[in-house]
Amino acid sequence: MIRGKSQDAHGRLIYDYFKGRPLGVEIVERDDGFVNSGAGGAYLSKYKDWPARERSAIRFAKGRVLDIGCGEGRHSLFLQEKGFDVTGVDISPLAVRVCRARGLKDGRLMSTDDIRPSLGTFDTILMLGNNFGLLSNKIKARVLLRRFLKMMNPKGRIIAESLEIYKRPVDPAHRRYHLMNMRRGRMPGQVRIRIRYRSLATPWFDYLLASKKEMKQILKGTGWRAKLFFSSKGPSYIAIIERE
Amino acid sequence: MIRGKSQDAHGRLIYDYFKGRPLGVEIVERDDGFVNSGAGGAYLSKYKDWPARERSAIRFAKGRVLDIGCGEGRHSLFLQEKGFDVTGVDISPLAVRVCRARGLKDGRLMSTDDIRPSLGTFDTILMLGNNFGLLSNKIKARVLLRRFLKMMNPKGRIIAESLEIYKRPVDPAHRRYHLMNMRRGRMPGQVRIRIRYRSLATPWFDYLLASKKEMKQILKGTGWRAKLFFSSKGPSYIAIIERE
Repeated sequence: MIRGKSQDAHGRLIYDYFKGRPLGVEIVERDDGFVNSGAGGAYLSKYKDWPARERSAIRFAKGRVLDIGCGEGRHSLFLQEKGFDVTGVDISPLAVRVCRARGLKDGRLMSTDDIRPSLGTFDTILMLGNNFGLLSNKIKARVLLRRFLKMMNPKGRIIAESLEIYKRPVDPAHRRYHLMNMRRGRMPGQVRIRIRYRSLATPWFDYLLASKKEMKQILKGTGWRAKLFFSSKGPSYIAIIERE
Repeated sequence: MIRGKSQDAHGRLIYDYFKGRPLGVEIVERDDGFVNSGAGGAYLSKYKDWPARERSAIRFAKGRVLDIGCGEGRHSLFLQEKGFDVTGVDISPLAVRVCRARGLKDGRLMSTDDIRPSLGTFDTILMLGNNFGLLSNKIKARVLLRRFLKMMNPKGRIIAESLEIYKRPVDPAHRRYHLMNMRRGRMPGQVRIRIRYRSLATPWFDYLLASKKEMKQILKGTGWRAKLFFSSKGPSYIAIIERE
């Protein structure tokens, strides 16, 4: 599911920002009609402007790095400049174009589903910026996590960001959505969303927001275990995940 | 067409802002799928933060004032504090609740279509903040303008804000929309939109963005004439409209 031109809403925002064009607002639309703004210009932020949890977590990167959902490449480029061998993958053609234009040596157009051991062997998998969500749902997450195990060196680790969705105060609209999800057999934070920007809209996709407890449950039996959690302001947190 | 609770997206944003609640982003969705953010917190801005054109134009208010689409009441309240007798009307129940709570003595829940001479006789009609758009389309605009003539004292004036939609650079997406509108027999800037905020969405409605030239054409034969235009930064402008 690589995105066509009219579907690359997220990539187009990044591209406009990169080109210095006036920016529209990036909108995240949920399937219950709830709308909110995306991160917008923050995507191209520099290290010093990252949240404290990201600055701490990225120190755990080592060896060859796979950045899943690399976007405009802010994490990939930071590590590449530090001398790491980095491969960035993203589903958005324009995002990949931007991260390559910004100097990323190995930026690939690829959906998370298509990540295979043929990409090589890695020491670190990076899923910052809520990108644990790209694992979509519990079943797919477990399939992918097991696959990652085969693609990583014995001391490899995953650095993954998600959201403590039950952290109070929980917005009543989100609470209603969690309950609706449970009724339809989905994880509470398995949000079905699409990104809209100007006239563009991505296809609808599942994005998994998991509490720490839920992340642990997902990891169970996959060969992975969360060893450490970072959080700073707000409900976001980052897990350092290593082999059991 | 007074809005129900789940439809009062604009009012809810104003209400949340008024209550000091964390704000979501207000989204303007056009019927071609183009999305953008609304004015958000700017709605409750103070006089000193208004655009220069609004600060200049409001000096033309006199006597009894009818503020159409008064929203949270920033213009109405400013004039009321200056001693004017002000009636504010708005289609949004929560907006009216807020402007009353902020001290507006005469804030009424009413759609623009329902404005009738029974409201009384006025010296000034205010349609700032792009509210000329509330006249919807050329035909309805002319019906309402003729009705306003009967509701106003001989020296009454209309202070109306709109958008010079052809001012360069015209966004190609907007240009495409103008052309599409012309093909379907609408005015180029007759945008069909709805406001979305969190899980709420207003019904779709026509909002008329007219260039100065188009505004003059609409006024022709209604008994009104634009005597003066103000503009500051950007394509917005304000017309001071008086009897021919």
